Amino acid sequence: MSDVFDLACDLIARPSVTPDDAGCQELVARRLRGAGFGCEHLRFGEVDNLWATHGTGDPVLVLLGHTDVVPPGPPEAWASDPFRPEVRGEMLHGRGAADMKGSVAAFVVALERFVAQHPDHAGTIALLLTSDEEGDAIDGVRRVARVLHERGQRIDWCITGEPSSTAVLGDLLRVGRRGSLSATLEVRGVQGHVAYPDKARNPVHAALPALAELVARRWDDGFESFPPTSLQVSNASAGTGAGNVIPGRMQVLFNLRYNPHWTAEKLEAEVEAMFERHGLDFELSWHRSGEPFFTPEGPLRAAAREVLATFAGAMPEESTGGGTSDARFIAPLGAQCIEIGPVNASIHKIDEHVRVADLEALSDLYLALIERLLP
Amino acid sequence: MSDVFDLACDLIARPSVTPDDAGCQELVARRLRGAGFGCEHLRFGEVDNLWATHGTGDPVLVLLGHTDVVPPGPPEAWASDPFRPEVRGEMLHGRGAADMKGSVAAFVVALERFVAQHPDHAGTIALLLTSDEEGDAIDGVRRVARVLHERGQRIDWCITGEPSSTAVLGDLLRVGRRGSLSATLEVRGVQGHVAYPDKARNPVHAALPALAELVARRWDDGFESFPPTSLQVSNASAGTGAGNVIPGRMQVLFNLRYNPHWTAEKLEAEVEAMFERHGLDFELSWHRSGEPFFTPEGPLRAAAREVLATFAGAMPEESTGGGTSDARFIAPLGAQCIEIGPVNASIHKIDEHVRVADLEALSDLYLALIERLLP
Ligand SMILES: [Zn+2]
Ligand SMILES: [Zn+2]
Repeated sequence: MSDVFDLACDLIARPSVTPDDAGCQELVARRLRGAGFGCEHLRFGEVDNLWATHGTGDPVLVLLGHTDVVPPGPPEAWASDPFRPEVRGEMLHGRGAADMKGSVAAFVVALERFVAQHPDHAGTIALLLTSDEEGDAIDGVRRVARVLHERGQRIDWCITGEPSSTAVLGDLLRVGRRGSLSATLEVRGVQGHVAYPDKARNPVHAALPALAELVARRWDDGFESFPPTSLQVSNASAGTGAGNVIPGRMQVLFNLRYNPHWTAEKLEAEVEAMFERHGLDFELSWHRSGEPFFTPEGPLRAAAREVLATFAGAMPEESTGGGTSDARFIAPLGAQCIEIGPVNASIHKIDEHVRVADLEALSDLYLALIERLLP
Repeated sequence: MSDVFDLACDLIARPSVTPDDAGCQELVARRLRGAGFGCEHLRFGEVDNLWATHGTGDPVLVLLGHTDVVPPGPPEAWASDPFRPEVRGEMLHGRGAADMKGSVAAFVVALERFVAQHPDHAGTIALLLTSDEEGDAIDGVRRVARVLHERGQRIDWCITGEPSSTAVLGDLLRVGRRGSLSATLEVRGVQGHVAYPDKARNPVHAALPALAELVARRWDDGFESFPPTSLQVSNASAGTGAGNVIPGRMQVLFNLRYNPHWTAEKLEAEVEAMFERHGLDFELSWHRSGEPFFTPEGPLRAAAREVLATFAGAMPEESTGGGTSDARFIAPLGAQCIEIGPVNASIHKIDEHVRVADLEALSDLYLALIERLLP
């Protein structure tokens, strides 16, 4: 097999469930130091982060990835041990194969080849890895971005290795992500007995018309290639289980995935005004888990599109769908961000896998893109 | 103090938390046997029931009560031991003082005096007691009513001793009770991730417009002296606690208190049709916990109204409000039912109490009413 394949296997064999790095970053750092990179380990709490750079000055291109994986679930549900890489047919199986130890291996080999072939390349090439992308993401890239910002480290371009492809490698170029905003709504009423509704105030009854309006609202029709902003109720609870008691309060959790048509502030104000209009006795607490980011048409998108077309045999879809990624922490530094990685069909699932041939191809793809951006 | 007071204290001292009778009925039966009553103990499961009769033939007047009490809660919250009757000021304190050991004591003394003064009274006078009124009420009066029905025992009139008075003894005559109908609604959806709403189907979103319509509906404008039918949601739950998961199902419990404008069948059909109309994927299970009963104007109400006016100094309010009582099981036998008992302000609460003077007065009131009905 290839160099990328061997490194991917070495990484999968390390059971780095968030936030445990399990030695992955040390393995990567050893290789990159050997290739002439300066490597800095930034450990915060239980989280390991690696910042490796080669070259100096502008422009600055960062490859962004994570070494942590989501828990494998019951190992006996897997066809092979989730932390023992195994090839069956055309696929390499193991937790993290697609999300995203395959990408990390492809990054490392691309970087080694790039600096070997272009020792005097323009600007700065860097790799940033964290062991807390799948978890709270507090001591990971969010924290490192703050450190880099305080140092005055500017970043022009960032390529995240998240598994973006849908059917074949390179068929999708992610150029943005929606923002994520979560709310906990408490509606207060007055507890009582169902036989005496006049002596109580049912918070469920008060909340229902407001919630019905909330979920029926069309927030926008999308923004550039973003899907429309969407609100989903994730949890609702009221009552103690007793069938004859009018509950004293109701709690509802909901989440908004929003495009750059909105900011968190604007959404919060709209929702609060709506509950006020319904005369609810309520409390709302908000958690902003990621502002949206968007990379408009420009040199980065153009270069990536052309490279992907070469590999996939067709122009990629340029998309802003999906969840959140660590790019949300790099974009606010002024960086243009895109995401390119393997097929994501099996991520976070039992028997996660990546096409063996795609590992070497992905590394070649990254190398071609780096060569275009730092000629 | 009085004979009624002494018997009330003897009953309160027996900690007869549902379904435990704790010897109350044996105490009552001993006294009534001494007065010439025939006493029959009907025990079903853990529940004691007493059926005591005097006289033969029609008309049949039944006094209906219960010896069980709701749990006292933390005894240290009480000013005195809940099962040690104690007089403070004008009040006798103890669990069951008002609901309804005071009424049971008043019944017994009234019966003793009635048969002593009218040994050859018309028709049949009976006392029915259960130790499961506050609980599931399955092996209590519901069960006894079935036995009586199978024996061909007819009942013309039933006086329940539930605490009906609001400010002073005799200010309210209860002439009916609403029915109670409970439902468990399951709304099915398809679980998913909040970032991909197109791949899921949020059951909360589907349910909200239907539930908003359900709680906004005005069912009727009341029926005779009944308040309007009322629906209350008692419990709602959806979600696992995770903020990023669209729940796969939602559960909602609600209860209807309805007047004789409706039957359980009609209500169930209306609600189901409404959910169908909203296109919900749902399952509804119903629990009928009591049909409504209503005693229209007639000799029983007229006699009770006049006796109460004598004691309270003003005509009583004739009401059909409040929760459910065991009268719901006697009314279907063809009996006209009313409820007359002490002031209910402290029932089911800490430091439950009854006015000492009302115990003897209540017994006199029952006696006067019995004398009118069985001359
Ligand atoms: Zn990932
Ligand atoms: Zn009672």
